[in-house]
Amino acid sequence: MRTYVNNLKENEETRIAGFLTKIRDTKYMVFLVLKDITGEIQVSISKEEQPLLVEEALKCTIGSVVSIFGHMVLSEYVKNGGKEFIPSSIKVESIADASPIEEGAEIDTRMDYRWIDLRSDANTLIFKVQSCLVKALREFMYKENFMEIHTPKLIGTASESGSEVFQVKYFDREAYLAQSPQFYKQMAMASGFDRIFEVGPVFRAEKSFTNRHSTEFTGFDVEFSFIESYEDVMTLEENLLTYALGEVEKQYGNAIKETFGVEVSVPKKAFPRVKLSDLYSILESKYGLVVQDDEKNDLTSEAEKLACKYAMDEFGSEFIFVTDYPKEKRAFYHMRDENGIPLGYDLLWRGIEITTGAQREHRFEILKKQALEKGLEKDVEFYLEFFKYGCPPHGGFGLGIDRLTMLLLGLSSLKETEFIFRGPNRLNP
Amino acid sequence: MRTYVNNLKENEETRIAGFLTKIRDTKYMVFLVLKDITGEIQVSISKEEQPLLVEEALKCTIGSVVSIFGHMVLSEYVKNGGKEFIPSSIKVESIADASPIEEGAEIDTRMDYRWIDLRSDANTLIFKVQSCLVKALREFMYKENFMEIHTPKLIGTASESGSEVFQVKYFDREAYLAQSPQFYKQMAMASGFDRIFEVGPVFRAEKSFTNRHSTEFTGFDVEFSFIESYEDVMTLEENLLTYALGEVEKQYGNAIKETFGVEVSVPKKAFPRVKLSDLYSILESKYGLVVQDDEKNDLTSEAEKLACKYAMDEFGSEFIFVTDYPKEKRAFYHMRDENGIPLGYDLLWRGIEITTGAQREHRFEILKKQALEKGLEKDVEFYLEFFKYGCPPHGGFGLGIDRLTMLLLGLSSLKETEFIFRGPNRLNP
Repeated sequence: MRTYVNNLKENEETRIAGFLTKIRDTKYMVFLVLKDITGEIQVSISKEEQPLLVEEALKCTIGSVVSIFGHMVLSEYVKNGGKEFIPSSIKVESIADASPIEEGAEIDTRMDYRWIDLRSDANTLIFKVQSCLVKALREFMYKENFMEIHTPKLIGTASESGSEVFQVKYFDREAYLAQSPQFYKQMAMASGFDRIFEVGPVFRAEKSFTNRHSTEFTGFDVEFSFIESYEDVMTLEENLLTYALGEVEKQYGNAIKETFGVEVSVPKKAFPRVKLSDLYSILESKYGLVVQDDEKNDLTSEAEKLACKYAMDEFGSEFIFVTDYPKEKRAFYHMRDENGIPLGYDLLWRGIEITTGAQREHRFEILKKQALEKGLEKDVEFYLEFFKYGCPPHGGFGLGIDRLTMLLLGLSSLKETEFIFRGPNRLNP
Repeated sequence: MRTYVNNLKENEETRIAGFLTKIRDTKYMVFLVLKDITGEIQVSISKEEQPLLVEEALKCTIGSVVSIFGHMVLSEYVKNGGKEFIPSSIKVESIADASPIEEGAEIDTRMDYRWIDLRSDANTLIFKVQSCLVKALREFMYKENFMEIHTPKLIGTASESGSEVFQVKYFDREAYLAQSPQFYKQMAMASGFDRIFEVGPVFRAEKSFTNRHSTEFTGFDVEFSFIESYEDVMTLEENLLTYALGEVEKQYGNAIKETFGVEVSVPKKAFPRVKLSDLYSILESKYGLVVQDDEKNDLTSEAEKLACKYAMDEFGSEFIFVTDYPKEKRAFYHMRDENGIPLGYDLLWRGIEITTGAQREHRFEILKKQALEKGLEKDVEFYLEFFKYGCPPHGGFGLGIDRLTMLLLGLSSLKETEFIFRGPNRLNP
């Protein structure tokens, strides 16, 4: 029997267990603060009455792990809600060496000792929120009759674009790590699986050192059949995020506000949708953004930020869909309209791109042509085969869970929102 | 607007969409059978009244994908529930080449064209069931206050045992693919995360060609703190599986019975727990199993089968926990009792091992000694660090989702229950 600190009932004999965050040795008393996943409580030991417990307690160091039997009493002398725990016995589970990292240490030092770094209330909250977020995202998909699948991460060819793919020694040959489940979630459409999603690791061999890139992250990928247009994809994503943010707000809204000073704002209406070229005109006339013509085929970081400002100013929305990117900037598998404009979008949130989505090209001959146009041939041969034997029209999108968590909590880097961050120079712990 | 075949209402104008599984051209009528994820329906087109639709229909081949507008009527002449669909227009979405695989083809041929293979009702059902199973497993964990985490698959050292690990070219150095989230889920315990689980890919560079091994599979991993004994781990797993099987039975019990001829039997009571050495005595006296003494430190395949027979004969249980394996056969991180016996178990189901679970050794000095004893030093250095700064007692287990699905449905190979199978000779599609 073990009771969480937050669930203790007055005078009930039980066991509490956790890490010691404070040890105070006074003239008549020893005070411990024990912390578990739900909170902290003071443990008060009388030197006169409980000399053996004092001995056990004073063996401990900060960070040590103990189980303490006893009962909680209410006391007006104690901070933290006026509760203290009166022990009847103490079991030392693990003695801690002095912590190698100090409070306020730089992120890279903290990452060396990530398991200690994660003990802080704020860091633990990040992962409670992330777990809640992913649970809510999945819940929505199940309600919408989506099936969860698990696609292979080991693949036979370098697929989407060779340069950013990790190479694996696979017995007597080479394999590669999937950069996304894109090809396989589309395969599920050719299999008639109709509506699928996947949550899994995604690998990118990019030497990027920005705060929003990592070589491995958790993707949330969606694909579904018989859409009538990529507008259906945007609508689904809009509803998905609205539902998930609502759930996070309900469960952790207050804690997030308190800890990170950020409001979890649940969208109240549809996200604005604007074409890339219109957006640049608007940003120029509204905010005086000057961008050279040859850069207007994509969103610059500054334009991303201003686009979100515009969405908020004009529509009261934190989100904005940007559509009609030129085909040069989109993957070959995006379907194009009669003018060659890709039928897809980027979704921006709080100044940063969080999704690329699109209707996919499901017609074999056109798809093959578009692949060739991008110089892809051998590596996508296996993928093109998926479209030869009948394939429904379909579309989908992908989200990065870590990036989503970062924006949700107003944090500055993926290093904070990945359980263990991986970058070009970071493979430990 | 699109309506699934199984949700059609009489005389309601709508769109159905799916694959054509039959095309029959008779004197007066053309009959199509359209299949979607929910079922099939006959589409009846009158040659005299709808010559243009006939033309569209006859462009199609088996496997082609169409959207058909129209309405459903009840008809006593039609099999399959007496429903037929009367089209008002037909849109051909994708014309299929003739299928390269025949019904009843060998599994390895089927796998070459996995996307077509998965279209069969039975194969689609496998993945509906698997999605339901994983959903139920997660639901149970959430109810028990477990947090879901995502640990890195790219790791810096070959960890558990170098020989079975895939090597990755990681910029200017080597990385490895995680064989399990073992080390990192234990790290979460040292972080005070208390109770965590993870669903993710697991990589094994084993040249095994059995029906129950693959180089990549989906693991369901659990770890939790402040257990009092590995009995707590067994109890949690027992409750988890009982809950999940109950959910699968509710939703798919009948379909599984019909399609695979297998009963989803939901455990009614605790699983029997027996020590390895006692088990061998029992199997010898009850079933005349003769095993040489030097093989009795582990379960042979035959003993696994007989152990399950014994569990059923004696306790009416499909499951049996086997405990007290010798330390030579267990990982160094299993905690041992005062006699050096590892405090862990294997769980067998329907004749096959599905889990290894244990209380872990959380005391740094002992853990280090046990690692050295197994010849592990450099590769586990980073892992040992997790235990230096305080770590709660904890335990956990891992399940293979694909293997679980295989046993649940009475199938003969993981090749059937992995969306895309990966083996030493299999990297496509």
